[in-house]
Amino acid sequence: MQVWKDYQAQHKDRFLNELLDLLRIPSVSADSRYNQDTLRCAEAVKQRLQEAGAEKVEVCPTAGHAIVYGEKIIDPALPTVLVYGHYDVQPADPLELWHSGPFDPVIKDGKIWARGSADDKGQFYMHVKAFETMVKTNTLPCNIKFMIEGEEEVGSANLGIFLKDNKERLKADVILISDTAMLSLENPSLDTGLRGLSYMEVAVTGPNRDLHSGVYGGAVANPATILCKMIASLHDENNHVTIPGFYDKVQVLSDAERKALNSAPFDEAEYKKDLGIDAVWGEKGYSTIERTGIRPTLEVNGIWGGYTGEGSKTVLPSQAFAKISMRLVPGQDWLEISDLFKAHFEKIAPAGVKVSVTRHHGGNPYVTPTDHAGYKAATRAVEATFGKAPIPVRGGGSIPIVSLFESELGLKTILMGFGLDSDNLHSPNEKYGLENFYKGIETIPYFHKFFAEQFKQ
Amino acid sequence: MQVWKDYQAQHKDRFLNELLDLLRIPSVSADSRYNQDTLRCAEAVKQRLQEAGAEKVEVCPTAGHAIVYGEKIIDPALPTVLVYGHYDVQPADPLELWHSGPFDPVIKDGKIWARGSADDKGQFYMHVKAFETMVKTNTLPCNIKFMIEGEEEVGSANLGIFLKDNKERLKADVILISDTAMLSLENPSLDTGLRGLSYMEVAVTGPNRDLHSGVYGGAVANPATILCKMIASLHDENNHVTIPGFYDKVQVLSDAERKALNSAPFDEAEYKKDLGIDAVWGEKGYSTIERTGIRPTLEVNGIWGGYTGEGSKTVLPSQAFAKISMRLVPGQDWLEISDLFKAHFEKIAPAGVKVSVTRHHGGNPYVTPTDHAGYKAATRAVEATFGKAPIPVRGGGSIPIVSLFESELGLKTILMGFGLDSDNLHSPNEKYGLENFYKGIETIPYFHKFFAEQFKQ
Repeated sequence: MQVWKDYQAQHKDRFLNELLDLLRIPSVSADSRYNQDTLRCAEAVKQRLQEAGAEKVEVCPTAGHAIVYGEKIIDPALPTVLVYGHYDVQPADPLELWHSGPFDPVIKDGKIWARGSADDKGQFYMHVKAFETMVKTNTLPCNIKFMIEGEEEVGSANLGIFLKDNKERLKADVILISDTAMLSLENPSLDTGLRGLSYMEVAVTGPNRDLHSGVYGGAVANPATILCKMIASLHDENNHVTIPGFYDKVQVLSDAERKALNSAPFDEAEYKKDLGIDAVWGEKGYSTIERTGIRPTLEVNGIWGGYTGEGSKTVLPSQAFAKISMRLVPGQDWLEISDLFKAHFEKIAPAGVKVSVTRHHGGNPYVTPTDHAGYKAATRAVEATFGKAPIPVRGGGSIPIVSLFESELGLKTILMGFGLDSDNLHSPNEKYGLENFYKGIETIPYFHKFFAEQFKQ
Repeated sequence: MQVWKDYQAQHKDRFLNELLDLLRIPSVSADSRYNQDTLRCAEAVKQRLQEAGAEKVEVCPTAGHAIVYGEKIIDPALPTVLVYGHYDVQPADPLELWHSGPFDPVIKDGKIWARGSADDKGQFYMHVKAFETMVKTNTLPCNIKFMIEGEEEVGSANLGIFLKDNKERLKADVILISDTAMLSLENPSLDTGLRGLSYMEVAVTGPNRDLHSGVYGGAVANPATILCKMIASLHDENNHVTIPGFYDKVQVLSDAERKALNSAPFDEAEYKKDLGIDAVWGEKGYSTIERTGIRPTLEVNGIWGGYTGEGSKTVLPSQAFAKISMRLVPGQDWLEISDLFKAHFEKIAPAGVKVSVTRHHGGNPYVTPTDHAGYKAATRAVEATFGKAPIPVRGGGSIPIVSLFESELGLKTILMGFGLDSDNLHSPNEKYGLENFYKGIETIPYFHKFFAEQFKQ
């Protein structure tokens, strides 16, 4: 609508500067050294929601990081959209690989370079500015509620409790999230599903102290070597995960569904070039799109043990550790998979070492029904601003709380992401395209318009 | 001799306090942040040698850490013993596991607790005090030269050049080193051999940046997983090293030699209890004594990659690294084994990753001829002060420069160590027994006496 276009054109620069201010706050939820900054970020989000026109805005404390809530109820008879986002970000290390400070946002080549620019500050803030657009132009077509949390990157441990305690306040007709990617601005897409997650940490302990590798080497089990052998055994020669029962409940797609999935534009040569690899890798019998979309995986996210400093130290380490996470697909339950992993990892531990396995966090996979009013509204909104219908795709990432929303609030979630896979989420030099940012702000009001219209009919 | 006993009894406490002063200097050769302390330690050693009666004492600069030289030539016609030791120490981390500061020596339970107390400050300093004893009591039976270096813990990279450039100055009849352990004070032993060493570092590189493990997980080779698989493949199910040619030149001992070796007192239950392990580990078909004495081994000394901080990060790392060292036995050449390792490790790298292998340092194995005048003198010296003949054993550790002494100076080395395997060398809470320290100072003069006597005959 012209009135939206005009308002957004007029406040374009302010929208961006407000985002840059948010990006300057290092709200790293995983690292307690940043707790003060994380709280400061929550307060900033609260202020921005108020300025945009939200009411009853509140920084709600939790056992961990706070959740920011705000709402604008124009008519209880109208449908209500609950917008979810997160203001916390991933740790920035390894810092030395950043071209500019992770928390000193820089605009370059038409992109915003900063930790959180795409995941998720840049994306949830589009909703704040789209909301402002509708409020200030008196065109808000429905009620809108905001729930912006601060623990998404560490598993949203306290969100479930918040949902339980605020069922009335969070009443809505659909949940709208922008925390995913589209194929490209030329090939807009909508996620019809997300993988679940089970994030584990393991510790292998051998001798009760670090030992001289000459005096004891060859006679005492080396925890680093044993950990390597255990991790190596978790994938077979076809890169299938070897944990007993891991695939038992995986929903198998029909040949037609797989065909449709593989029809999405994908250039393997370009993919390899972008990553600087000479070959792709993965489970035998599946395409890259399938490996990241419809198949469960197991990845080592971190491993450490022994002497890792400068030079050399002839030590036989007492302990070795690894962070290992599994992406899950529809049919798999994250708690059940976590238990299967724990039981298996403890079972394969050889004599001479002790193994401990702890669960960090996780969540179940999710599939969006494409006949849902929200999905239809998202499709039409993208069509309205991109000029073409979005391609339905399965996202490889996880937003564990999406399945939580369904179980706790009985609400479906629409994943209308405007990022790109190449945005370096969780990596150095995270970025978000200026055009993606503005395109999102332009598209979101249409979602609310088309969503509300379906209820009138 | 009574005169030695009296002198040492009289100066007992000063001997110890001087050692404690040396232990307070953090001469960590592997860490350039300690370069100033390492040089300060060399200067301290120089001063102590001069005080003890050495002449022409000099801190000799090298491309790396300095070498301290000193000598006392009483008669060119008499035999000369070249005493080698090292004033540098291993890094102290992990610091949190130390019960007291690694460089704040503490006397407790009859032991000196500090980094370097046994390896090697406490042991080379016994020679300085034994030398002082003979000088001050006018009983020096032969010429003595000291060469105390500062790069033993990082591979003695510059010692070879020093030997080449100082052949004349270093002329001697035997080299004497105390940098090894004996079975116990009740069961004194002498090392008849040492294992060689090849210390390598490997890097596995996958994608050109850390990736989101959800977006890319399952479709891109994970360097941490690949590194684990590669390391796991280096030992087969019998814990034999799988590198082609690794065992080809290993000298096989006769059944009689193995029987003699295994006759040394060894209590496996006690061994496991001391280390807190429920089972020993190692190459099938060999005893613990053989696994650490006469068999080559391969150990992971350190491994790291991905996110290793607090909490969780769903990253697929761009790189993973490991420090891997091999202990070698007579017959194996460390440069040849290093090349075999490099060739094999590069060969087993799968598509999708790049592997780089670099050599840190190493040295060849060594065997002491038991009919050598020096070995006989050491045996008699131990008998004189311990009241029983030492048990000949094969040491599992490495002093790479021992084979260098033979090739460059044409000299045999006598390994008269007074430490214990339980001294926590290279580990937190390194210690050295007060009795071991004083027993060494008491024994060493007899070595020189008996060594010199053999030349008179």
